[in-house]
Amino acid sequence: MPPFVYAFPVRFADVDHAGIVYYPRFFHFFHAAFEELWRARLGSRAYVSLLDDDRVGFPAVAASCAFTAPLRFGDTVEVALTVAKLGGKSIVFRYAVDRAADAKVARVACARGEVTCAVVDLVRFTAIAVPERIHALLADLVE
Amino acid sequence: MPPFVYAFPVRFADVDHAGIVYYPRFFHFFHAAFEELWRARLGSRAYVSLLDDDRVGFPAVAASCAFTAPLRFGDTVEVALTVAKLGGKSIVFRYAVDRAADAKVARVACARGEVTCAVVDLVRFTAIAVPERIHALLADLVE
Amino acid sequence: MPPFVYAFPVRFADVDHAGIVYYPRFFHFFHAAFEELWRARLGSRAYVSLLDDDRVGFPAVAASCAFTAPLRFGDTVEVALTVAKLGGKSIVFRYAVDRAADAKVARVACARGEVTCAVVDLVRFTAIAVPERIHALLADLVE
Amino acid sequence: MPPFVYAFPVRFADVDHAGIVYYPRFFHFFHAAFEELWRARLGSRAYVSLLDDDRVGFPAVAASCAFTAPLRFGDTVEVALTVAKLGGKSIVFRYAVDRAADAKVARVACARGEVTCAVVDLVRFTAIAVPERIHALLADLVE
Repeated sequence: MPPFVYAFPVRFADVDHAGIVYYPRFFHFFHAAFEELWRARLGSRAYVSLLDDDRVGFPAVAASCAFTAPLRFGDTVEVALTVAKLGGKSIVFRYAVDRAADAKVARVACARGEVTCAVVDLVRFTAIAVPERIHALLADLVE
Repeated sequence: MPPFVYAFPVRFADVDHAGIVYYPRFFHFFHAAFEELWRARLGSRAYVSLLDDDRVGFPAVAASCAFTAPLRFGDTVEVALTVAKLGGKSIVFRYAVDRAADAKVARVACARGEVTCAVVDLVRFTAIAVPERIHALLADLVE
Repeated sequence: MPPFVYAFPVRFADVDHAGIVYYPRFFHFFHAAFEELWRARLGSRAYVSLLDDDRVGFPAVAASCAFTAPLRFGDTVEVALTVAKLGGKSIVFRYAVDRAADAKVARVACARGEVTCAVVDLVRFTAIAVPERIHALLADLVE
Repeated sequence: MPPFVYAFPVRFADVDHAGIVYYPRFFHFFHAAFEELWRARLGSRAYVSLLDDDRVGFPAVAASCAFTAPLRFGDTVEVALTVAKLGGKSIVFRYAVDRAADAKVARVACARGEVTCAVVDLVRFTAIAVPERIHALLADLVE
């Protein structure tokens, strides 16, 4: 199955003093793709409703990333999201960040990362089973 | 003439401890719309080329904003960009930030701001006349 | 009376593609000085307690800034906070941002700004009179 | 040998819509501690001089973190930096992020992470041997 892909430009302020995207921003890019998945498939209010109405959240319990090429201002970022593991009480998201090809640059792999999220009852802050509709949202993205 | 409009979602991390978009982020939203204007009209490499190849930049010399309604996670932001003044050596950009209407909320005016930018030779960091092609880019946006 | 002064380094990620502090960050610097005022005078939990326990907040209703010199990575920022107006239902904070002198650079004025905050009951999101203890906190900073 | 410790408050905008520090910010906290190490030991201009004058940089090639407890606005962060490996052409930094104890909360371990940095000639963007003075800066922090 194809991954969920979210493309967007590197912004003026994403870069650091070295002139390349500040590496913590890649984890933000991961999260932006995760948010966009919800928005694209279930509408702009779906994720906030899960959090605020159903009081279910996805805190990160582990995150890792390998960086292979820098991103610069002017580049277009493509984040491909898949699900490495859809477990009983946690989900492992996998993210592939590429620089898109354009008139000036070729496509290149920039970062490959994983984020393990617990599924949590936000009222009691305890782990819960992954709800059925989350399964439904993510099923086609499982590797 | 219609303004240039850029719409995008409030992101999970745009809000602060009060649960509303951190007010300095509005100035970032202004800049995102400015970047998107270049991208939409002249391509993804146009603005970075102006900066890096032509060594022309637009440092802000003044910025102001009035805030009339908060933005929250789940909202869609619309930034409308116009040009309040296209001067000889500076440009005054005007930004209107609205919350877009959706199934849950009505449209509301959130912020109205202005940013005065100098046009600067980045090698000597001195003000220069607004280049002709910047005039061309912005002409239809002058109020 | 002297202003409240908060000094801190420009961070690696505060700069943008032009190599200078991204102008929206100055408003963040203002807020950092405001937070530090509470922390320095009333302890690390005072401001969060006002917000979360007393449900009183200070949303910005207007902000403005004039920028006169850039800040760069390696510079030390000094933000001087005073109160331009301590009104019945709002407060105008004034911020002066300087680059501190060091072995390499002289002191220079970088930005001068103002932020008007309403004082708000966060439960009903309505303006309230400035509480007495806020008056006490800010009295010596009124210009 | 003791680690290098850098303590600072969680800021108003460090939290996300869930009311806890946005997990990508932890990697920013790591970097802040790294910057502060240079500043504390060698002065405010040492790291920028390494980058801009000597043209030596430390791009991250891998980063990972396990999160065990959230941080909230009002908390004081303590980042303890050690060196897990001081190799020929790369360095593995280890970061332990705790919430400091105060009148309201006990100390708790929040995050444990590692960042592997290459040492790079920024002109040719090629890996180089770790310079002698970097060894000297870090020697006492090697685990």
